[in-house]
Amino acid sequence: MSRQIAPTAVVAAGAELGRDVVIGHGTIVHDRVAIGDGARIGEHCVIGLGVPDAGPLRIGAGSVIRSHSVLYEGSDLGERLETGHHVLIRAGVRAGANLRLGTQAALEGRLRIGDYVRIQGYSVLGPGSEVGDFAWIFPRCTLTNDPLPPSHVVEGVSIGDAAVVCTNVTVLPGVRVGLGAFVAAGAVAGEDVPAASILRGDGRYGGPVTGLMHLPSGTRHPWLRHYADAFPDDAQGRLAELFERVRAAARTAPREIPA
Amino acid sequence: MSRQIAPTAVVAAGAELGRDVVIGHGTIVHDRVAIGDGARIGEHCVIGLGVPDAGPLRIGAGSVIRSHSVLYEGSDLGERLETGHHVLIRAGVRAGANLRLGTQAALEGRLRIGDYVRIQGYSVLGPGSEVGDFAWIFPRCTLTNDPLPPSHVVEGVSIGDAAVVCTNVTVLPGVRVGLGAFVAAGAVAGEDVPAASILRGDGRYGGPVTGLMHLPSGTRHPWLRHYADAFPDDAQGRLAELFERVRAAARTAPREIPA
Amino acid sequence: MSRQIAPTAVVAAGAELGRDVVIGHGTIVHDRVAIGDGARIGEHCVIGLGVPDAGPLRIGAGSVIRSHSVLYEGSDLGERLETGHHVLIRAGVRAGANLRLGTQAALEGRLRIGDYVRIQGYSVLGPGSEVGDFAWIFPRCTLTNDPLPPSHVVEGVSIGDAAVVCTNVTVLPGVRVGLGAFVAAGAVAGEDVPAASILRGDGRYGGPVTGLMHLPSGTRHPWLRHYADAFPDDAQGRLAELFERVRAAARTAPREIPA
Repeated sequence: MSRQIAPTAVVAAGAELGRDVVIGHGTIVHDRVAIGDGARIGEHCVIGLGVPDAGPLRIGAGSVIRSHSVLYEGSDLGERLETGHHVLIRAGVRAGANLRLGTQAALEGRLRIGDYVRIQGYSVLGPGSEVGDFAWIFPRCTLTNDPLPPSHVVEGVSIGDAAVVCTNVTVLPGVRVGLGAFVAAGAVAGEDVPAASILRGDGRYGGPVTGLMHLPSGTRHPWLRHYADAFPDDAQGRLAELFERVRAAARTAPREIPA
Repeated sequence: MSRQIAPTAVVAAGAELGRDVVIGHGTIVHDRVAIGDGARIGEHCVIGLGVPDAGPLRIGAGSVIRSHSVLYEGSDLGERLETGHHVLIRAGVRAGANLRLGTQAALEGRLRIGDYVRIQGYSVLGPGSEVGDFAWIFPRCTLTNDPLPPSHVVEGVSIGDAAVVCTNVTVLPGVRVGLGAFVAAGAVAGEDVPAASILRGDGRYGGPVTGLMHLPSGTRHPWLRHYADAFPDDAQGRLAELFERVRAAARTAPREIPA
Repeated sequence: MSRQIAPTAVVAAGAELGRDVVIGHGTIVHDRVAIGDGARIGEHCVIGLGVPDAGPLRIGAGSVIRSHSVLYEGSDLGERLETGHHVLIRAGVRAGANLRLGTQAALEGRLRIGDYVRIQGYSVLGPGSEVGDFAWIFPRCTLTNDPLPPSHVVEGVSIGDAAVVCTNVTVLPGVRVGLGAFVAAGAVAGEDVPAASILRGDGRYGGPVTGLMHLPSGTRHPWLRHYADAFPDDAQGRLAELFERVRAAARTAPREIPA
C-alpha cells in the first residue's frame, strides 16, 4: 500500500482507490468512483462529476489519466486506459481494455468502445456510436449522430474492427465504416464504407485497402502486420486473425473505378 | 443567502457575487466581476482575467460555467448562460439570454450573440461576428474574419436567426448566412447563403430548407416546429413566429438546380 | 528581485527562475526547468512534466504562458514566447524568438520552429515538422506525419519562411509548403506548394500570391509589407528582405490555369 495523494487533491470519502493509486495536485475525486490498482491521475482533473441517475465511474487498473481531464459518473473504462491532457468523458461510455485517448479528445457519452482502440487527440465522438476492437481514429475527427440537425433523432455511427479513420474526417450520422476500412484525411463520410475498402478524401470509392502502400518503406495495408509490434504480446493472436479477415474481405471488394 | 465558495477558490474582494452563488475548487474570481444570483462556477476556472480598457465582466443569474473555463473582463453575458468545460470567452462579447456553449468552444471577443443560441463544442467564433436568435452552430465550426490573412482588415460573419451551421463548417470572412438557412457538414461557406436555403457540403446550392427531411422519423425543416419542445415555455411564441418567417422565405427561395 | 509566486503554486527546488518571474495560482513547476527573466506563467499550468531521457525545459526571457497549459521537459523555447490558454508543448521542440501559440494549440514534439512564427489557436503540429521564420498557421490546422496510418514511418511537413496556412487546413505527410506560399482555408494539401504560389481550398493551383488582393482595402500579397507594422522594429529588416524574395519568386511562378 503506497498511495500517493497530493496534499492539494480532494478525494471524497466514498471514493474507492486501489493499491498504489496516484492522485495529482489539485485533482478532485468524487464519491461513487472506483479507481483500479496502480492507476495514476494527473493534476487538476475532475473525476466522477455527478450525473442524475447514472451509475458509478469505474477506471480500470493500470490506467493513466493526464492533467486537466474531466470524467463524469456512469462509465465503465477498462484496464490500462491512457489519456492525454484536457480530455472529456461523459456518462455512459463502456470501453474495453487498453483504450488510448489523445489530448483534448472527447467521448460525449453513450458509447461502446472495443479493446485496444486508439482515438487520437482533438477527436470527438458523439453519443450513440460504436467503435470496434483495434480501430483507429486519427486527430480531429468527428463522429456525428443527428441526421437532421437539430432534431431528436439519434443515429450513431459504427466503426468496424481494425478500421482506420484518418485526420480531420467527419462521419455523418448512421454511417457504418466496415471491418478494416480506411477513410482518408479530410473526408466527409456520408455513406457506408464497405469492409476492407478505401473512402478517399474527395468522397470517392478508392478500391480495396490492399492497394494502399508506401513505396519507400515497403509498408502496405492491412496495417495489422506491419504495425503489430506496437501492441503487446497478448494482442498478437487477435491481430493475426484480424489481418486474415481484412485481407480476405479485400479480395472480394470491388476495384477502384478509374476517374 | 447560502453561497458556497470552495476553500481553495480565490475570490477577489471587489467581485460582486449574487445570492446562492457556487464557486468550485481552485477557481479564481478577479475584481470587476459581477455574478448573478444562483450562478454556479465549476472547478479550476479563471473568471475576469484583466484586459486593458475593458469594462467589467457580468455573468447573468442562473448561469452554469463548467470546469477549466477562462472568461476575460469586458463581456456582458445574459441570464442562464450554460457552458461546457475548457471554454474561452474573450473581451467584448454581448450575449443574450440562454446561450449554451459547448466544451472547448471559444468566443474570441467582440461578438454579438442573440437569445437562445446554441454553440456546440470545439467551435470558434472570431472577433467581429454576429449570431442571431435561436441560431445553431454545431461542433467544430470556425467563423473567420480576415479576408486576406494576415491583414488588418476585419470582416466578421453574420449568422441569421434560426440558422443552422452543421459540424465542421468554416465560414469565410464577411459571409452572411441568412435567416433559417442550413449549411451542411464540412462546407467551406465562401458566399452568402440566402434565407431559408441550403448550402451543401460540396459548396453548391441545395434549394430551400423545406427540402430537408428525415424520412424514417418524418422530421423536416424548418426545425422550429419539431424541435420546439427543447425550449422552455417563454420561447414558444418566438419559435412559432420564426417558423412562419422561415417557411415564408423558403417559398420564394430558388429550387435546386439538378447536377 | 521581485518574483511573484502564488501561494498555491508548487515550484520544485531544482527549478531555475529568473528575475521578476511570475507564477500563477495552482501552477506546478518541476525540476529541470529554467524560466528566463520576466516570464509570466498563468494559473493551473503544469511546467516541465517528466519525459524519459529528455533534456531540461528552457523558457525564454519575457515569455507569457497562459492558464491551463502543459509543457513537457526537453524543449528549448526562445525569448518572448507567448501562448494562449490550454496549450500543449511536448518534448523536443526548438523554437526561435517571439513564437506566438494560440489557445488550445498543440506542438506534439520534435519540431523546429523559426523566429516570429504565429501558430493560431486549435492547430496541431505533429512530430517531425519544420516551420520557417515569419510563417503563419491560422486556426485549426493540422500538420500530419504518417504517410500510411498507422505505420512507423514519419514524414514531417515543412512550412517555408513567410508562408501562410489558412484556417482548417490539413497538410499531408511529407508535403513542403514553399517560401511565402499561401494555402487557402479548408484545403487538404497533398502535394508540395511551390514558393510564392497559392493552393486553393479545392486543392487546385491558384497562381502566384501576387494575385491575392482585397479590393476594398487595397491590401495585396505578399503580406510582408502591409502587415509589417504588426512586428517590432528589430524585425523590419528581415521582413523587407523576405518581401523581395517572395515577390521575386512570384514573378517566376506559373500563372493560374483557367478552369
